[in-house]
Amino acid sequence: MAGEFDLIERIRARTVARGDVVLGIGDDAALLQPPAGQQLVVAMDTLNAGVHFPDDTAPADIGWKALAVNLSDLAAMGATPAWCTLSLSLPASDPVWIDGFLDGFDALARLHDVALVGGDTTRGPLSVCVTAFGLVAPGMALRRDGARIGDDVWVSGTPGDAAAALAQWSAGGPRDPALRARLDRPTPRLALGLQLAGLASAAIDISDGLLADLAHLCRGSGVGATIDLDALPVSDALRAAAPDRDTRRALQATGGDDYELCFTASPDRRGAVLEAGDGAGVEVTRIGRIGSGAEVIAVGADGAPWTPPRAGWDHFSG
Amino acid sequence: MAGEFDLIERIRARTVARGDVVLGIGDDAALLQPPAGQQLVVAMDTLNAGVHFPDDTAPADIGWKALAVNLSDLAAMGATPAWCTLSLSLPASDPVWIDGFLDGFDALARLHDVALVGGDTTRGPLSVCVTAFGLVAPGMALRRDGARIGDDVWVSGTPGDAAAALAQWSAGGPRDPALRARLDRPTPRLALGLQLAGLASAAIDISDGLLADLAHLCRGSGVGATIDLDALPVSDALRAAAPDRDTRRALQATGGDDYELCFTASPDRRGAVLEAGDGAGVEVTRIGRIGSGAEVIAVGADGAPWTPPRAGWDHFSG
Repeated sequence: MAGEFDLIERIRARTVARGDVVLGIGDDAALLQPPAGQQLVVAMDTLNAGVHFPDDTAPADIGWKALAVNLSDLAAMGATPAWCTLSLSLPASDPVWIDGFLDGFDALARLHDVALVGGDTTRGPLSVCVTAFGLVAPGMALRRDGARIGDDVWVSGTPGDAAAALAQWSAGGPRDPALRARLDRPTPRLALGLQLAGLASAAIDISDGLLADLAHLCRGSGVGATIDLDALPVSDALRAAAPDRDTRRALQATGGDDYELCFTASPDRRGAVLEAGDGAGVEVTRIGRIGSGAEVIAVGADGAPWTPPRAGWDHFSG
Repeated sequence: MAGEFDLIERIRARTVARGDVVLGIGDDAALLQPPAGQQLVVAMDTLNAGVHFPDDTAPADIGWKALAVNLSDLAAMGATPAWCTLSLSLPASDPVWIDGFLDGFDALARLHDVALVGGDTTRGPLSVCVTAFGLVAPGMALRRDGARIGDDVWVSGTPGDAAAALAQWSAGGPRDPALRARLDRPTPRLALGLQLAGLASAAIDISDGLLADLAHLCRGSGVGATIDLDALPVSDALRAAAPDRDTRRALQATGGDDYELCFTASPDRRGAVLEAGDGAGVEVTRIGRIGSGAEVIAVGADGAPWTPPRAGWDHFSG
């Protein structure tokens, strides 16, 4: 069995090089040189086996997703990613598993020039904890507390795909690989987040489900919202997997794991928001409006209210 | 059962306030303002139940230790701690457990003015991952790669106490609370690390065992070392728990979890090193010398070599 120090060498050999890393993996701590005048943006998220991914998830997909969910948090702040640390708990040291994991982790890290600068490896039930560090100019970060009454509510991409993949996996029937890819390899919307900095009034990434995450944003801003479920863009794969409208609505409104951005902007910035989506190469769709009150109300195109079968994904409820 | 958001509120309500935290717990990511001209020091360490602490460890001690092992890494770099993030995986949401955990975590955070700025809580086997952030002036960080042939080797405190507590716990016989406190509530040597910045040539904290960690330092510096085991200071509690010299040597030389500092300095700085220990309020003891070669050799006062029964603590060996 490979030892911990071999394992650390395997990881170190593959990491992205950056000039602002004074000292990376291999000392008691990493030493980094943040650029003058920038603010530091820090996100930390853990994926646990049996909770955050199906047990047949490939090691490479676990690696990708562990970094992706953290980069998604940086995207929702309008930050540019720079560095990350990784704590990997494994039941046993399995070089094949680790190389697979690193394949996925590194593929995403390289896409966004993120250097892995430290962390630890330890024995324990499979668990992957990542801390991601980004940079943003002072005053430019997207936050949850800036939504104003009258703002539009927008969403990127086609929500519901990841939840549909999870539903197919749970049901044990036929599975669509395109949906599964959306669950296993979410795309952090970093380019969009950067385009929206200084343009959107508030933003959040959709990890718990659209309604639940929009409710977090509204709570942060002290406002409410009404969204039109029939305005949500539906992928062809989701339409095929969930032809029934109510099932589809539930997946789109309450399914987590999409890591799309939900954001708000003043109605006089609609053209600029559409251009931001074009610039970032992702569809952005206006789905509702910020209002007074404290509730998020979901309606259909006919204006009839819709009640979700469950109120989002809370890891400790149930 | 309390939900995840209640739990986050419990945590947020207790955290240390700092002026450089632009946005703490409650958004997609934390927003921090590093001081101009400083380098950022980042450490990340995980404690897993059944691996890193005895299963009868009190929640408050787990909270203290999870932060302490990370602050110890910052101490070994000569950094001043500033912020941290916490990822807490729990089998179930237990408010009593969590309040106990936070009691210990916060007690240490307040001692060192460390603000908890983010992280996550999730369901899973008990696991605590912390990322700690410190600051250091450029060029002042203590590293593992600066030891030079002829340097003295020093150690802080009385190594072996934590290993003795673990041995007593494993044996199931009488236990000394003073030793157990050294295992459960290690003292990160932050004041000493600050005193040693610019004075020590290299440093590491003792988590895996004195010989193993000194070997890491030597590998980083491309040197070897000889240490005199009879020069190691022995606590009264350790002497009582391990009256047999060989047992005591094994605990002191190879036992982990002490979180004392092992460091090197030029012989012409002996007076300054002793003053640094005085200034930091911790005993520092000269235990050996850096030499050529690549090995760490342990000898007794009579010069006879001593071979450890095991080569330190590697979480994946065995």
